[in-house]
Amino acid sequence: MTEIFDGAMELQNAVADVLRRAQSAKRTLAIAPTKQKNDALRKMGEALWADRAAILAANAADVAAAREAGQPEARIDRLALDERRIEQMVDGLEALIELPDPVGEQMEHFVRPNGLDIRKLRVPMGVVAMIYEARPNVTVDAAGLALKTGNVAVLRGSREALQSNQAIVRALHRGIATAGLPSDAVLLIERTERETVDFIIRARGLVDLAIPRGGEGLIRRVVENATVPVIETGVGNCHVYVDKEADFAKATPIVVNAKTHRPSVCNAAETLLVHQDVAKVWLPQAAKALRAKGVELRVCERAYAVLAEAGLTDGVEYATEEDWATEYLALTLAVRVVDSLNDAIAHIERYGTLHSEVIVTEDEAAAQQFLRRVDAAVVYHNASSRFTDGFEFGFGAEIGISTQKMHARGPMGLRELTSYKYVVHGDGQVRK
Amino acid sequence: MTEIFDGAMELQNAVADVLRRAQSAKRTLAIAPTKQKNDALRKMGEALWADRAAILAANAADVAAAREAGQPEARIDRLALDERRIEQMVDGLEALIELPDPVGEQMEHFVRPNGLDIRKLRVPMGVVAMIYEARPNVTVDAAGLALKTGNVAVLRGSREALQSNQAIVRALHRGIATAGLPSDAVLLIERTERETVDFIIRARGLVDLAIPRGGEGLIRRVVENATVPVIETGVGNCHVYVDKEADFAKATPIVVNAKTHRPSVCNAAETLLVHQDVAKVWLPQAAKALRAKGVELRVCERAYAVLAEAGLTDGVEYATEEDWATEYLALTLAVRVVDSLNDAIAHIERYGTLHSEVIVTEDEAAAQQFLRRVDAAVVYHNASSRFTDGFEFGFGAEIGISTQKMHARGPMGLRELTSYKYVVHGDGQVRK
Repeated sequence: MTEIFDGAMELQNAVADVLRRAQSAKRTLAIAPTKQKNDALRKMGEALWADRAAILAANAADVAAAREAGQPEARIDRLALDERRIEQMVDGLEALIELPDPVGEQMEHFVRPNGLDIRKLRVPMGVVAMIYEARPNVTVDAAGLALKTGNVAVLRGSREALQSNQAIVRALHRGIATAGLPSDAVLLIERTERETVDFIIRARGLVDLAIPRGGEGLIRRVVENATVPVIETGVGNCHVYVDKEADFAKATPIVVNAKTHRPSVCNAAETLLVHQDVAKVWLPQAAKALRAKGVELRVCERAYAVLAEAGLTDGVEYATEEDWATEYLALTLAVRVVDSLNDAIAHIERYGTLHSEVIVTEDEAAAQQFLRRVDAAVVYHNASSRFTDGFEFGFGAEIGISTQKMHARGPMGLRELTSYKYVVHGDGQVRK
Repeated sequence: MTEIFDGAMELQNAVADVLRRAQSAKRTLAIAPTKQKNDALRKMGEALWADRAAILAANAADVAAAREAGQPEARIDRLALDERRIEQMVDGLEALIELPDPVGEQMEHFVRPNGLDIRKLRVPMGVVAMIYEARPNVTVDAAGLALKTGNVAVLRGSREALQSNQAIVRALHRGIATAGLPSDAVLLIERTERETVDFIIRARGLVDLAIPRGGEGLIRRVVENATVPVIETGVGNCHVYVDKEADFAKATPIVVNAKTHRPSVCNAAETLLVHQDVAKVWLPQAAKALRAKGVELRVCERAYAVLAEAGLTDGVEYATEEDWATEYLALTLAVRVVDSLNDAIAHIERYGTLHSEVIVTEDEAAAQQFLRRVDAAVVYHNASSRFTDGFEFGFGAEIGISTQKMHARGPMGLRELTSYKYVVHGDGQVRK
């Protein structure tokens, strides 16, 4: 028992040491001029490219170990780097240079009757901990986003990517230092025991914000145990509701796009809700288009009856209660016929995850009802849920998609990594 | 053991029941028209006034029990109501009617090259839990702020105020129902066991935001244990730094005001930092003015020497390390002579609580340095820290003063009780 306890203490101290270094660096980062931060981003990219041989060698060792350990091929694909992927990392850093620096932006300015001049200015959050899985590109992405916004990045990747991450961070440090900023602006937690996550997310006073980026299990573990501020990202059980007044020429492409354009991501549709008045006419068309893209359907009894009558039961199964709550992240779509707009909204209220919800209709009043009443980060009228994305929204960068209501909601760009402060000028005012 | 366990389960279920009712009510509140919400605020005030005899009787019982239990007089003073205090509660509700409704406010509007029309609109947070102490006025205040912003208020006051709170909430319910809104818009947690707080702050999915309002102990307990989103309020170890270029005619009134105007609140100053170049000339003047207001001084050795030379050691003691970290909330002020602006900033970095920090100087460059580098919700140049207040900032209401960086910082008005959603209009767009 003592041994375990000592081990935990030692681990906690190791993590705390890194977090304290981050805290020391944060005040320098917070006031770093835009030009210097952009210079650092450029130098970080140059150093990555210069070190590509070392990074690829480290990554090859990670990949070999992952293969040895019998990791699934999809996971190995996310882990593996090549020159093209390193080039993409460099391009990502370059793209950040072009974006406006949110730090220092004046959000509001007002003068009180007593003459106090009050400005609300954006400031960095401070120390931002990113917790993610075996994707070395996230290391560069997170470091770049944090640096551009004057935050210190504490990176906790997974054990499988450790050698890759170490080689990458070594290059990033050189780039940052060349630009005259503290290399502690980007810190890798090199201890990858499971418990390090718990220490990070409970390190009040040392972590200003934690963002988990990864699968549902990781996110749930973080949000359920964190006592530091967290932004919850990622889980999207998104719906497309095809109303009785839908234009089928819009409905079919939207459903097909929302489901099949990239099924593995959080803004993909998982359930199709169809108004009973159009189910008979439209559902067979939609099913054909979806089946042509290889989509399996899990349907309610009414939908099954419609499809059976049209002779379209291949790749179609009855849905169970579980299907309504499932984020398939695959070429599977749940389908339910609903009696009314109200029933569609009630279904979404029950099973939705506050991510992205779509109505397809030409009835303006129905659209207004849906957009107003459905509680989600993004609600759409006649467009695919796939647009819930920082780049598609024009932010030029994306930290993730927030599914919480506090601080940031929906696609998060650079501004969502900032807080603000009030700067007040007086000439001797005191309170009466 | 079984008995304790069953008791805890029963309590948890009782709290969860209330929270589920809150969740059911929140969708109605979220889309309630401004006029109806304002009508409810008016009716709530009328019902409070009509029920004043019953409320005062319930309050008298609470006060008698608190006296019996030997509660300190300051605490009883906060608990006790009279007609004038009920009138103030009604006035508070009336004042909210006049304020603009933040819900539905368009924060941004942009059209993407593909024609998607994206609006960012304010929406309520949902279910807001307020956890507070034996102050029945907070019950009315929190209910009014939540209702105006379309949120459901879950109120967890303290056991000592339970009868008062029950009588108040009974009146509020009648007012809300008269306006045609669900009376579950305001819900009192009537179980006041200590553990109810723990259930509330860990009820993920049932509580959208928790705000502790009270002493440091309560706030720390909430922020250290919560897994639901929390806004941390209240602790203010605020500093006034008097620079070598300070105008003494501003410095003295600012320090006296910041310390003595209302010493028991979070935006009062707790430590005075004085540049060594002006300590000898100005500190004796300041000490006289502060002593005249009854302020006790806890001073560093250099300050003591200056004061001793001026024959001003009455009410002056040497400061210990602990003094720099203490939020006195009383007529006590720590005083330290510093070598430079940098040393003043370093002191604040070490001991400050990110609340409100003041520089008094005529040197614009020094002021800029201070305002830029000091990390606090509000930084002041030549004004008293006492202005950190929702009403003084012109918000017309105040939820509290946030000392965190996430979501809301500094004085919080109505807008800080809201989130936002993106509403997207298309005409059939799909992602390429």
